[in-house]
Amino acid sequence: MDIEQFRKAGYQAIDRICDYYYALQQSKFSVLPDVEPGYLRPLLPSNAPETGEDFSQIAEDYQKLIVPGYTHWQHPSFLAYFPAGFSFEGILGDLYASSVSNPGFNWLASPSCTELESIVLDWASQMLGLSPSFLNSSGVGGGCFQNTASEAALVAIIAARSAYKAAYPDTKLEDMRIYTTTQTHSLGLKAGVILGLSVRALEVTREDNFSLRGDTLRSALEEDKKKELHPFILIATIGTTSSGAVDNIAEIRTVTADFPELKIHVDAAWAGMALVCPEFRELCFLEDINAIADSFSTNFHKWGLTNFDACPLWVRDRKYLTDALDITPPFLRTAQGDAGIVVDYRNWHLGLGRRYRSLKLWFVLRGYGVEGFQKHIRKAVDLNKFFVELVSSSNIISLCAPPSLALSVIRINPKPSASNQATLPEDALNDLNKLFYGKLSARKDIILTQTVLNGQFCIRLAIGSAFTQEVHIRDAFELITHEAKLALEAWEQPQIGA
Amino acid sequence: MDIEQFRKAGYQAIDRICDYYYALQQSKFSVLPDVEPGYLRPLLPSNAPETGEDFSQIAEDYQKLIVPGYTHWQHPSFLAYFPAGFSFEGILGDLYASSVSNPGFNWLASPSCTELESIVLDWASQMLGLSPSFLNSSGVGGGCFQNTASEAALVAIIAARSAYKAAYPDTKLEDMRIYTTTQTHSLGLKAGVILGLSVRALEVTREDNFSLRGDTLRSALEEDKKKELHPFILIATIGTTSSGAVDNIAEIRTVTADFPELKIHVDAAWAGMALVCPEFRELCFLEDINAIADSFSTNFHKWGLTNFDACPLWVRDRKYLTDALDITPPFLRTAQGDAGIVVDYRNWHLGLGRRYRSLKLWFVLRGYGVEGFQKHIRKAVDLNKFFVELVSSSNIISLCAPPSLALSVIRINPKPSASNQATLPEDALNDLNKLFYGKLSARKDIILTQTVLNGQFCIRLAIGSAFTQEVHIRDAFELITHEAKLALEAWEQPQIGA
Repeated sequence: MDIEQFRKAGYQAIDRICDYYYALQQSKFSVLPDVEPGYLRPLLPSNAPETGEDFSQIAEDYQKLIVPGYTHWQHPSFLAYFPAGFSFEGILGDLYASSVSNPGFNWLASPSCTELESIVLDWASQMLGLSPSFLNSSGVGGGCFQNTASEAALVAIIAARSAYKAAYPDTKLEDMRIYTTTQTHSLGLKAGVILGLSVRALEVTREDNFSLRGDTLRSALEEDKKKELHPFILIATIGTTSSGAVDNIAEIRTVTADFPELKIHVDAAWAGMALVCPEFRELCFLEDINAIADSFSTNFHKWGLTNFDACPLWVRDRKYLTDALDITPPFLRTAQGDAGIVVDYRNWHLGLGRRYRSLKLWFVLRGYGVEGFQKHIRKAVDLNKFFVELVSSSNIISLCAPPSLALSVIRINPKPSASNQATLPEDALNDLNKLFYGKLSARKDIILTQTVLNGQFCIRLAIGSAFTQEVHIRDAFELITHEAKLALEAWEQPQIGA
Repeated sequence: MDIEQFRKAGYQAIDRICDYYYALQQSKFSVLPDVEPGYLRPLLPSNAPETGEDFSQIAEDYQKLIVPGYTHWQHPSFLAYFPAGFSFEGILGDLYASSVSNPGFNWLASPSCTELESIVLDWASQMLGLSPSFLNSSGVGGGCFQNTASEAALVAIIAARSAYKAAYPDTKLEDMRIYTTTQTHSLGLKAGVILGLSVRALEVTREDNFSLRGDTLRSALEEDKKKELHPFILIATIGTTSSGAVDNIAEIRTVTADFPELKIHVDAAWAGMALVCPEFRELCFLEDINAIADSFSTNFHKWGLTNFDACPLWVRDRKYLTDALDITPPFLRTAQGDAGIVVDYRNWHLGLGRRYRSLKLWFVLRGYGVEGFQKHIRKAVDLNKFFVELVSSSNIISLCAPPSLALSVIRINPKPSASNQATLPEDALNDLNKLFYGKLSARKDIILTQTVLNGQFCIRLAIGSAFTQEVHIRDAFELITHEAKLALEAWEQPQIGA
């Protein structure tokens, strides 16, 4: 493909993306595709072609074969998982970045890649209200992109393990422990598996809204110390995946005052974006995060308007990362790196090559401004309030936990009525709700995800697509109610027959 | 930004990318930017704007402030590191992929993302001549994208550690050993640091062209077994970074027959692309790789025409990965996953969310075809042959190791002449070559990288940009010769004065 062929194909791609978003805004297609597992293989040849093909044919096949197999994360009725960030500014950032195909692992590999990352993550840090300690401009702390929140947590754990081993060199890996809670994302367990380290999931309770309390942490630390085990890092969460729970960082702060060797990584993958709004900072314990977090991570590629991927990790001390991860063979040495006058981000993450992600975040932050971000966050929170009001009026559906920002967790839990005074036992309720979720999952016009909260099977509804409006939330509630009634009828049917 | 504003900004982006490549083809700007460390911060505000800005202003600032700070990896005179892949098809793939912002961690997250990855990596696997055991369609083995070759090796090591611990549960992590060679990329050492495992770098010699020999491996295994240490994986390299050395997989094969518990990861990050040409398969030990490699990785984002990032990892048995990395909390369960009828790639890599990279590789493989890939590889190898011919005619520059595919490693090593019969001692030669490299590095019109081969300071020249032609190689040789002469003069000057 020559330059003029690229121009033509590029215009076409831009036009088709426009067509796609016009259709999406108008819900002209369902959020879920109508394909079965294995749909694509029979439609494609089994080998790459011997000779190159014309791009017009490739673009046609893309429209015909690939687009129909997408789950549409930007669809107004996408209410599963957490949202995947999106903006037109983000696409343009990815486009310009891809055009220079730069692995940006050190300053020399492209000065502007490194320097823009350093600056734009300072912008982001300040927008979220993080302490100046986390600024790249501090020269001591700083932020850089990781691949995802999982890798951000993994890097934080590696840094903490390394710091602990430096302080206590005789500690056996087998005796070291990562702390999470029973509600921490699977990234905690996965980090343990990856590193071969044990993970202790501290118990959190429904009464505490699944938030980690100080006393629980203190007891665990005392207990493990007695057993000569070495808890060295706590992964605290602001906004868990299952229910949006927020660990009590204020109480954790009082505990860590007595256990200073315990490092704290704050995983705010989803909810961290809410920090852009001053009114949500207290409930997210921002002041305490700023006081004690050794590292903090949030995903602009979730609720933050930025196309996947864009996950910064900030640390209070960059040596925390580089002491653990800096390996410099001769072929990676540069005059600027040797002189210590530049940051080489390769020493802040797991791999060597790194994607050039700062450009899209720069475009997004400038395109929206702080106010645009605030508006985006508040809109989703307001839509969730609207959904919660609808739920509170329901006789069938109820909340399983307090709503958290733009996330609600619900299940069927029929209120006793004049005709039926019985309340169902928990086991039966779980079976009923699995039936209910099965019915919802069979639909293509909505997507929700399941979870389990201390034994209760529940359904999550997470708001955040830029295109979701009140009408879509009302439609979702009606559809959920409709399927709940059908589930309840189907459930009662065999009971009667039994 | 609304849809029509995006269309306008998108067209402009496409046009500017076209302008960029016209200028690049004609070498209208230098490969290295004319900026000093810290150039960008004074040019940008210290905070994100309060209100959103018009994209036309953002796009202007991009051209004015960011582009001038790029190191141009596609420039015909970019001869440093290894090339970063590029094609217009790749940009278009990234553009369409970014437009749907999909984290593709499981089948349901977008069926076409998962299925296209499965198919296109089968295409790639067959194009490179890998064994059918590595095909996704085998249902047993398979391939998926990792972030970079470093993470591919890391994942392979984690899988091997997990398999070893499953077979020998009492093994202490402190006694487990990763094997590399003294020429393995820093990814080996970095994986050790990340996992807290020791790394033994097996000695390779200049006489063997820095290739790992079977006897070296066998002695190390016997020695470590005697010490009750547990070597569990060897990272073998096809095409080392320093000199393009190829470990002797045929001999390694005979050793592993006696040590079946040793897993083999083949890192062919750069040279693996050469496997597309039948004539290079023997020198890369393809037959032996197919016989013994537990995992194999190569970067389409290096020599493979695909924009960063695109690094597949293939395994002979997918359970090797999933046994080590599968963590499935309730909120990630799906009907299709539970039924075992789909692949959820989140269990094949470190993180959860994954970039949608198969689209660009599909576009690239179709746009070029196998023949287009072969032509691209052969062109770079031929250009390197041309460079080697020029070097062989030089009285000053010589090769430090045999040329490998499209990589040459050189240094100043003046041939004795009528006027000067002395040969320099090694220490002096190293100092002279550092001076020489310093002069080359001060230029903006070429970029080369340094390395050290068993104590010898050398300079690498790696060919692979799609735009590099014979004229650029001739120019590079003349420029190198010019700087070598100046270095030699500067070197002899103080000697005379002394």
